[in-house]
Amino acid sequence: MDAIVVILTWSSVEVTTAFAKRAIIAHQLTNCLTEVFIDRALKRAAWLDDQLKSTGNTVGPLHGLPLSLKDQINIHGIESTMGYTAWIGRVAQRNSALADILESQGAVLYVKTNVPQTLMSGETFNLIFGRTVNPFNRSLTSGGSSGGEGALIALKGSPLGVGSDIGGSIRSPCAFNGLYGLRPSFNRVPYTGSVNSLEGQEAILSVFGPMTKSIEGVREFMKSVIFGKPWNRDPMALKKQWDEDAYKLVEHGNGVQLCFGILWSDGLFHPHPPVLRALEIVKNALLAKGHKVIDWEPYKHGELYANAKSVFSAVGEEDFLADTVPTGEPIIKTMKLSDDEPVKWPAKKLNVEAPMLGSFVSADTKLTAYELWQVHKQRRQLRTEYLDRWQATASKTGTDRPVDAIIAPVAPYPAPPHGQFGIGTYTVVWNNLDYPAFILPVTKVSPELDPKRPPPVFFSDLDKQLYDFYEPEIFANAPVSVQIVGRTQNDEAVIGMAELIDQAVNKQKGA
Amino acid sequence: MDAIVVILTWSSVEVTTAFAKRAIIAHQLTNCLTEVFIDRALKRAAWLDDQLKSTGNTVGPLHGLPLSLKDQINIHGIESTMGYTAWIGRVAQRNSALADILESQGAVLYVKTNVPQTLMSGETFNLIFGRTVNPFNRSLTSGGSSGGEGALIALKGSPLGVGSDIGGSIRSPCAFNGLYGLRPSFNRVPYTGSVNSLEGQEAILSVFGPMTKSIEGVREFMKSVIFGKPWNRDPMALKKQWDEDAYKLVEHGNGVQLCFGILWSDGLFHPHPPVLRALEIVKNALLAKGHKVIDWEPYKHGELYANAKSVFSAVGEEDFLADTVPTGEPIIKTMKLSDDEPVKWPAKKLNVEAPMLGSFVSADTKLTAYELWQVHKQRRQLRTEYLDRWQATASKTGTDRPVDAIIAPVAPYPAPPHGQFGIGTYTVVWNNLDYPAFILPVTKVSPELDPKRPPPVFFSDLDKQLYDFYEPEIFANAPVSVQIVGRTQNDEAVIGMAELIDQAVNKQKGA
Repeated sequence: MDAIVVILTWSSVEVTTAFAKRAIIAHQLTNCLTEVFIDRALKRAAWLDDQLKSTGNTVGPLHGLPLSLKDQINIHGIESTMGYTAWIGRVAQRNSALADILESQGAVLYVKTNVPQTLMSGETFNLIFGRTVNPFNRSLTSGGSSGGEGALIALKGSPLGVGSDIGGSIRSPCAFNGLYGLRPSFNRVPYTGSVNSLEGQEAILSVFGPMTKSIEGVREFMKSVIFGKPWNRDPMALKKQWDEDAYKLVEHGNGVQLCFGILWSDGLFHPHPPVLRALEIVKNALLAKGHKVIDWEPYKHGELYANAKSVFSAVGEEDFLADTVPTGEPIIKTMKLSDDEPVKWPAKKLNVEAPMLGSFVSADTKLTAYELWQVHKQRRQLRTEYLDRWQATASKTGTDRPVDAIIAPVAPYPAPPHGQFGIGTYTVVWNNLDYPAFILPVTKVSPELDPKRPPPVFFSDLDKQLYDFYEPEIFANAPVSVQIVGRTQNDEAVIGMAELIDQAVNKQKGA
Repeated sequence: MDAIVVILTWSSVEVTTAFAKRAIIAHQLTNCLTEVFIDRALKRAAWLDDQLKSTGNTVGPLHGLPLSLKDQINIHGIESTMGYTAWIGRVAQRNSALADILESQGAVLYVKTNVPQTLMSGETFNLIFGRTVNPFNRSLTSGGSSGGEGALIALKGSPLGVGSDIGGSIRSPCAFNGLYGLRPSFNRVPYTGSVNSLEGQEAILSVFGPMTKSIEGVREFMKSVIFGKPWNRDPMALKKQWDEDAYKLVEHGNGVQLCFGILWSDGLFHPHPPVLRALEIVKNALLAKGHKVIDWEPYKHGELYANAKSVFSAVGEEDFLADTVPTGEPIIKTMKLSDDEPVKWPAKKLNVEAPMLGSFVSADTKLTAYELWQVHKQRRQLRTEYLDRWQATASKTGTDRPVDAIIAPVAPYPAPPHGQFGIGTYTVVWNNLDYPAFILPVTKVSPELDPKRPPPVFFSDLDKQLYDFYEPEIFANAPVSVQIVGRTQNDEAVIGMAELIDQAVNKQKGA
């Protein structure tokens, strides 16, 4: 990671001071922080500097590096409110497994970052800390639920932060803020000892993962965490070492000639022009490097989304109410700036007329355990069919292998205005399938390069309304990214392929 | 595996013929089979023989070896009734992932084996095929739910069979029939495409695993399955290669000096004298080889058992009724030989007075999804505490490592008489923790060596009744086994340690 080079030149105290100052500025601009404990961080940085000086050895691969954490990750002695007023004053009595491992590898923790109430939102707003806005354009959302990390890191207030993702919560903030990031497979990064929403939901698991402006940061974070043997601290953690052969793409023809599948649309919503242009940039860059690119046909993405939503909605609001009722805090139903703000596109309408697509959790769909098990059964069937289809692509690639990875939109749009995020289909399907997904920033919205395109054959009236919503000026200068999606527990290969694609895209750009 | 040697000498047709004949005899003695398709198997054996002859190569490491499968494992063209009359005529339209992999490695499938109705029982009886009895003493149970495999393999009607285990269903038949066997960690052996009970229950997963009279068979089965890349066929399968370093005990001091913890009792039921003697034999054998042995204190085994039972009982009988109502088949409530048979010990009483310990599934405990999630939360907490305790044993072992494995009873008794199996606490806790558990046969019940011992301080009235139940003559000649329990996904190390322990015990015996 870049930071490894940095600590050879600067002390941890110097680096921590620099990022802390920058974090304060980022907070003033975007309202991205929840907990700030810089004094404590500087003491630790000084201790780490002493260690290095007196022993000549680093504590670990993250020696001296300041890292930011999403609010839900418990740090001993620091509050974890997760945006619930009822949780104010809840000071963590011990480190989470992840904080323990990061510190054991030498990290310096100094700030925690903002989240939406309930965590189940693609924007970031709660009644304690308020709203985090997008540093590229404050009228746009920073994404969610790891929107605090997204804004902080984009403004270089942190070299690397940890978000969580159960439906896109690492990926939408990465995409909307121009960051690299990874939604790892279930249970590769330990969750034990942190707080969460919908606890006890064991089918589609929330995962922690890295968000950063440095592509190498993703790999180094994952290696550092796995070297910390999370299975000795978290009973759910996979006992799976870092697989260097997988990272080197040994099972993918050693990376010489890969075949990627591009998902141009998920069959539910046509992506906006900047998103299509990002896919085209990646496709051309890969073809120029001698790789193959074929179309990826979406398979039952609507069913996969609806199935995930049934899981997330299985207890209705019962889980959230347990945390809001004690203080009488309302459950936030819209991320609009104010109630009388005009609806810019039908995100609100989605909530009313198509609850299945409008938000992640429906209030009125409480299930019995038996009904929930039937949802799980359907899920397993969908996962099996998707795997079978992926395997069957071996007949189309010409590489004697199935498609190596899928390249897909992260959302049908770049960061939308506040209150307008309504579509999670492009991210949630990969959570349901437990496919690791890497976010790669590709370009920015340009009114010149991204004019409105001719209307496609719409999938639905909502799809048409989404089309009508697009005006280049709304999104001007917003980052545009793609997802690199691989197979379950093949995180190392996804990282390896993302690095290869990033190089290809940068070469194409002349970077 | 021994079979590798065998096929150099005998053809697959010869080997398959021999095991098929023996399987028929085993069936006549114990009623262990459900489906029999020997003609088809012999055709495949002949094809495999031709392949070897014409190409000089084997199809895979299981080339030509006949393997038996528990009834629930789908084989194309063969019925899977799972003991439900309503399922008669349900012919599998395609192979399960496991059958596919075993055939791809060269196996010859020729019989399927008996199960209890619902699978949720420690004995084997259903209304299609009737009862499977114990080959050592037909008045004793063969165990369950993989009791058909247990009896078949003990009578050498199969060199190796596949059972399933959600609460002890591989391990009790192995223990009661003197077999080696493994309950692997979740998702190492693929389940996709087979039938099951309580489908959609995703917390405590049923797993497939090997049962055999050859200790090497366990390792070779696991290697063969994992070499078959189950993750390409089963979306739930772990993408985790066979770990030869783990098998060689690299993380366990290379096997030079290990420290084992012995669970003399789970704090709920005192094991009967033959079970204690088996633990003593193992302890002395390990001490004689220079290993360390300390006591393993049970930690919340009652809570772990009750928690598992809450999961299994979350839908009451609703799942079973879906399969019994169509034909009006009753749900079997007792495994007694007849209703007027005297109760030999209070297994039945357990059902009435202490439903939590009496059977795996309670009929009257239906949960909502929210209630089920609270059970899952408790489960995760218990798993975390157990892991923390295990890690903390590093201060007691003197090896600089935590205890390497736990050695524990499989049940408080050897195979009990029909209808008397009532206690699953010694097996279910490891399912709930997802700890791999290897069954090692140690000795047989000897009225001379296993007299009644003086009464201990009883944990409960039930524990006293269990004590009163023991008479050496009831269990005479029944096999007695122990469990070798390791950490989640550390299957290879558990296999390596079990082999080491088996050698120590055999050396001690002078074998």
